Amino acid sequence: MAQPWQDTTLPAHIRAADLLARMTAEEKTAQLSSVWLGASIGSDSEAAVAPGQHTYAAESADLDALLPYGLGHLTRPFGTVPVDPTEGAARLAALQRRIRAGNRFGLPALAHEECLTGFVAWQATVFPTPLAWGATFDPALITEMARAIGASMGAVGIHQGLAPVLDVVRDPRWGRTEESIGEDPYLVGTIGTAYVRGLEAAGIVATLKHFAGYSASRAARNHAPAPLGPRELADVILPPFEMALREGGARSLMAAYNDIDGLPAHAHTGLLTGLLREEWGFGGTVVSDYFGIAFLESAHRVAASEAAAGGIALAAGVDVELPAAHCFATGEGLPEELLDRAALRVLTQKCELGLLDPEGEPESSAEPVDLNPPHMRELAAKVAQESVVLLANDSGLLPLPEAGGPRIALVGPLADEQAAMLGCYTFPRHVGVNHPELTTGVDIPTFAEALRAELPGAQFVDDPAHADVCLAVVGDRSGLFGRGSSGEGCDAEDLELPYGQGELLDETLGSGVPTVIVVLSGRPYALGRWADRAAAVVQAFFPGQEGGAAVAGVLSGRVEPSGRLPVGVPRTPGGQPAAYLAPPLGRHGGPSNIDPTALYPFGHGLSYTTFAWDEPRCEAPEFGTDGEVSLKLTVRNTGERPGTEVVQLYLHDPVGTVARPEARLVGYARVPLDPGASAEVHATFPADLAAYTGADGRRVVEPGALELRVAASSEHVHHTVPLTLTGPVREVGHDRRMRCELRVK
Amino acid sequence: MAQPWQDTTLPAHIRAADLLARMTAEEKTAQLSSVWLGASIGSDSEAAVAPGQHTYAAESADLDALLPYGLGHLTRPFGTVPVDPTEGAARLAALQRRIRAGNRFGLPALAHEECLTGFVAWQATVFPTPLAWGATFDPALITEMARAIGASMGAVGIHQGLAPVLDVVRDPRWGRTEESIGEDPYLVGTIGTAYVRGLEAAGIVATLKHFAGYSASRAARNHAPAPLGPRELADVILPPFEMALREGGARSLMAAYNDIDGLPAHAHTGLLTGLLREEWGFGGTVVSDYFGIAFLESAHRVAASEAAAGGIALAAGVDVELPAAHCFATGEGLPEELLDRAALRVLTQKCELGLLDPEGEPESSAEPVDLNPPHMRELAAKVAQESVVLLANDSGLLPLPEAGGPRIALVGPLADEQAAMLGCYTFPRHVGVNHPELTTGVDIPTFAEALRAELPGAQFVDDPAHADVCLAVVGDRSGLFGRGSSGEGCDAEDLELPYGQGELLDETLGSGVPTVIVVLSGRPYALGRWADRAAAVVQAFFPGQEGGAAVAGVLSGRVEPSGRLPVGVPRTPGGQPAAYLAPPLGRHGGPSNIDPTALYPFGHGLSYTTFAWDEPRCEAPEFGTDGEVSLKLTVRNTGERPGTEVVQLYLHDPVGTVARPEARLVGYARVPLDPGASAEVHATFPADLAAYTGADGRRVVEPGALELRVAASSEHVHHTVPLTLTGPVREVGHDRRMRCELRVK
Repeated sequence: MAQPWQDTTLPAHIRAADLLARMTAEEKTAQLSSVWLGASIGSDSEAAVAPGQHTYAAESADLDALLPYGLGHLTRPFGTVPVDPTEGAARLAALQRRIRAGNRFGLPALAHEECLTGFVAWQATVFPTPLAWGATFDPALITEMARAIGASMGAVGIHQGLAPVLDVVRDPRWGRTEESIGEDPYLVGTIGTAYVRGLEAAGIVATLKHFAGYSASRAARNHAPAPLGPRELADVILPPFEMALREGGARSLMAAYNDIDGLPAHAHTGLLTGLLREEWGFGGTVVSDYFGIAFLESAHRVAASEAAAGGIALAAGVDVELPAAHCFATGEGLPEELLDRAALRVLTQKCELGLLDPEGEPESSAEPVDLNPPHMRELAAKVAQESVVLLANDSGLLPLPEAGGPRIALVGPLADEQAAMLGCYTFPRHVGVNHPELTTGVDIPTFAEALRAELPGAQFVDDPAHADVCLAVVGDRSGLFGRGSSGEGCDAEDLELPYGQGELLDETLGSGVPTVIVVLSGRPYALGRWADRAAAVVQAFFPGQEGGAAVAGVLSGRVEPSGRLPVGVPRTPGGQPAAYLAPPLGRHGGPSNIDPTALYPFGHGLSYTTFAWDEPRCEAPEFGTDGEVSLKLTVRNTGERPGTEVVQLYLHDPVGTVARPEARLVGYARVPLDPGASAEVHATFPADLAAYTGADGRRVVEPGALELRVAASSEHVHHTVPLTLTGPVREVGHDRRMRCELRVK
Repeated sequence: MAQPWQDTTLPAHIRAADLLARMTAEEKTAQLSSVWLGASIGSDSEAAVAPGQHTYAAESADLDALLPYGLGHLTRPFGTVPVDPTEGAARLAALQRRIRAGNRFGLPALAHEECLTGFVAWQATVFPTPLAWGATFDPALITEMARAIGASMGAVGIHQGLAPVLDVVRDPRWGRTEESIGEDPYLVGTIGTAYVRGLEAAGIVATLKHFAGYSASRAARNHAPAPLGPRELADVILPPFEMALREGGARSLMAAYNDIDGLPAHAHTGLLTGLLREEWGFGGTVVSDYFGIAFLESAHRVAASEAAAGGIALAAGVDVELPAAHCFATGEGLPEELLDRAALRVLTQKCELGLLDPEGEPESSAEPVDLNPPHMRELAAKVAQESVVLLANDSGLLPLPEAGGPRIALVGPLADEQAAMLGCYTFPRHVGVNHPELTTGVDIPTFAEALRAELPGAQFVDDPAHADVCLAVVGDRSGLFGRGSSGEGCDAEDLELPYGQGELLDETLGSGVPTVIVVLSGRPYALGRWADRAAAVVQAFFPGQEGGAAVAGVLSGRVEPSGRLPVGVPRTPGGQPAAYLAPPLGRHGGPSNIDPTALYPFGHGLSYTTFAWDEPRCEAPEFGTDGEVSLKLTVRNTGERPGTEVVQLYLHDPVGTVARPEARLVGYARVPLDPGASAEVHATFPADLAAYTGADGRRVVEPGALELRVAASSEHVHHTVPLTLTGPVREVGHDRRMRCELRVK
């Protein structure tokens, strides 16, 4: 007769509790652990691991000893070494059969993978990096992308994806800026939530990372302490997580490597339990970042031994140790009630995934797997196209003239470089670099290749002096741990273009040939030295396998540019971190000689057409602190080409109890318009969005004046709408409204 | 019959309360205000005021209207425009007579002045900048200096000095780094306290500033928000203030311009009242920074009007508005109980100063005033000499050979520049620059002038190629608000030498002539590009009027170099803030490609002789969490010249509940030794010094292992002494021991 835990008519947590009650302490511990097969095979793959990150991977022999206790997770079955997808799916299914057969409950492991720029697997579609998602300002498209990614992962037996990164960019010198969505919490929250919705809709557990404060590290050095106070944490760092849990339904979070004001995230009970579980009511799992628990001993020094580190992390609220059993499996017992708490969460999740069902994991199909089918490539192209930002085109040189077969000089070390298209969490850059004997698995044209295909009639000349136009392609090569100029462990001391590319631009712009600067990068770089002299400037953030064609398409005019900056582009390389989200005193110099104003601010991006913004209409600008206000705005395409305007709403709050941002994004919408066409944008702004954490630490909506800025960027305000909140000061909590919806009619 | 407030046998606060009870609200408000005479006379002096800092100074005409209500403060009677000291003293005495005669209680005003680098008055001795005080590691000398400064101020009728700056350097890009003492809280606390003791011993009210967090502003931009959490505030920012209040007896504090995690210091009740008054028991006055209350409205935007800003500041705990009545005097009434609280503090302080006595202020002497007498010049020379840091001398080129009249090439824009000797709070740079028609008032030789006097036999040649040695003098010109490369409002984007001096060094070091780099600056600059090729490197921080001779004396060998770095000198210009005080993970790269390790670390400095450090003796290395341990160490001069070693003790705490610094300074002593001589250093280390603010916010001493590092710098450890604390976890408060005393026998 079936046991309660096998009864699929019972709720997941009841089944999980029943199963838990039957388990020994060793079996429970095993559910909190993972194995990383193959990670230490050969020296090449080890090179991808940072100094200080021990590889403790299990070989098959070890596995036999472990399997009788069961196994919580399987680490990166596709993203460790290149494996043919069809063969990999079969292997994973076979491994799961072995795992199920090995333990007395017949439980499989939960297999997780990276999916930051698509499924990180050989031959899988390489999507643009998250900073490019931010540039699209298009949540619906990001949901569609994530659903497709999730479906492809599910098809080969993956249950959990270690994405998205919801760290708000605080200092773009950080190498992982490329993995982040932007510098505004609302943009990060809405785009990140869109990704989570898509992944979860495909049945994949989304993992919000890194919880929390990782991006605010001192001087943007990877893993360095984050000097965050409680208000910055509450109002800048945490809201994207809150939104992605509440509205996206994410079922997992990953703890961050850093400490917050001295308290390492992996040991932060207040964050992982007090806030996340008790206040937000989160019922899913918290996983450690890879080796993050061991770092409590070796780096943060808040534990006297690795065993103690395991106990501290478990007590704080980390449920699963990744990438492999180590601190949780030191042989020193973990307190039973803490083991139970974590194991119940893991088992409940496995139950929800169907892994506790008597038949366990469904058999994988024997069909050949295609991880790069046409609809995925089309999605990758669409995201790439929408992410290209036209920063400047004063000369009107772009789109490139078709007539007469223009003579083009293509210069710059990144013009013909795949690494300029790919984030460091793409398979080719993350794993493929260790396997030069293999192809990248998918077709990834460089910019030069894409441009030649885009402009078959153009002449490409070597000498700029004989060119009609020069395209100077500069930016980053992605890599891991010092093996590139952008990516995890590739932090920058300043925002000077790397590899001496600044001198190249000096030279090129001095030649007299009209020059378009094309930046392909993982972070913004200072462009103030050349902006005045460039004919045009185009920015793309590691746009993925279809990115070359997307950028070339924007240059040719085949693709209308519609991306907007998710991070400001500074004038000068130093002086970081800059001042987006800073209050007035911190923004505009005055008492300091340093002007931190961006050259191209957050939200900036041009089109090849022009738009007119009518005066917004607001019938009831006075409303209660528990109310909302409606706004209507007409935007017209007044030019001769189709184009997409991105209507942005920023909130300016003139007086509060603490210093607040001069303005912050509270809503946006893409408005595609044919020449001469117009659209009406309806916005509903809830008073809850004016909430901030006051002097006493409570999040409140206060009565008084507000100003909504209807804008084409954070600095280019078309109209301001004065509003007045009435009624009492109102405290709001986790159930507050977090969105201003904009509908385009 | 005399009233109680006139009865000099009664305690100050009783007399003040009696007087207060007789005052109207207008009279009380007047006690919280100041006037700044002459500050707006002419455009020149206005140029010294930052953009956004309104000048609202009273002319004599206004004064007549104000005086019937009395007057709290007088702002900068000597530091606003140049005034002959004898004449200024007479004028101030006359003004005080007029003020006393103007109000019905016969009360004079409290006159305050700047005294950061000596009394900021024309013809007064210009001492080295505070960063140079830090470099001396000599609290006794700093006390002697401050006592002399205070005596000279008292002699001309000044009651309060707006010094010292106790901001711990957190990012040396900040322009006010030169005004700070260093990057280690213990050094800042002990040197700052020494200054306070001297000033207070002379009867001058010392003003601790800036309370608090000013130095931790985002990207080191002046006035920008300080992203500080409660632990960094408690363990790094606040301890120097606590020490200077408790051990130095400072009677005033100045609120800081910045916000802390959103809460402006001028509105920070928790800081100005909760911590300062209720926890620390401070009974003196809190003054605003100049215009700091108005900034609550205009810049921080936490007040809807200037009147509201005044109310917020008064409620938070600001007692006196500087530089002049403005927000406190808007005509909108301040609550009586808050007025009383602040006015009582001001009147109590005036009573302590004798200003409530029936005879009021004593008449000033008619004797001529000399603000630059020989004993002051000697003190200025001694501080300057002890502050020069010999960073490198691998070649042994220094001291310069006397024989044969060496041919010296002296290059660099600062070689013959007074501004390279003077901090921005010296009279010549702060005020004198607006009066080019006047002399600086004191003799301030440039480095070139001092060197020629130091080496009368040397030949100075123009062509490096024909020189035996090249001296390349680089660094800063001090100035205010963008008028220099260092000083208030002169922040840096990175730590690249300003004015293109890096190229000068490239050229000079490429010439083949042995080159000594001499840095005269207000902050550390990156020297990694040249350090390997320089024959020697000498660093001085704006060493004052006697600084040229001090640096020249070190080069010649007349002065034995004995300064130690109060801030690390970085290798590269970017990557700030660096990592002194960071926990292990933040320090040594690993997961980041950036190595933030200093080229020359905190505490580093060489001598012309050599020292041997014997193994320390510690008889009872195990002691209670409420106990102390004794340590003895013998240091010998093993070279052939006299010299001074600076014995430094650093505490390393291997395991705690939060991430803590890899090591921090807990004690130091200068040990002057003749050739062949030795000295025994006795240290008493109290367990209290191991206290830190733990995960729960309590400051505790925990049992367990500790390590005392007996070192010549923060990175050059001669011996480590393992210690063990026993007993219970012990919470410590404001009465904890804060010093490890080192006695030299």
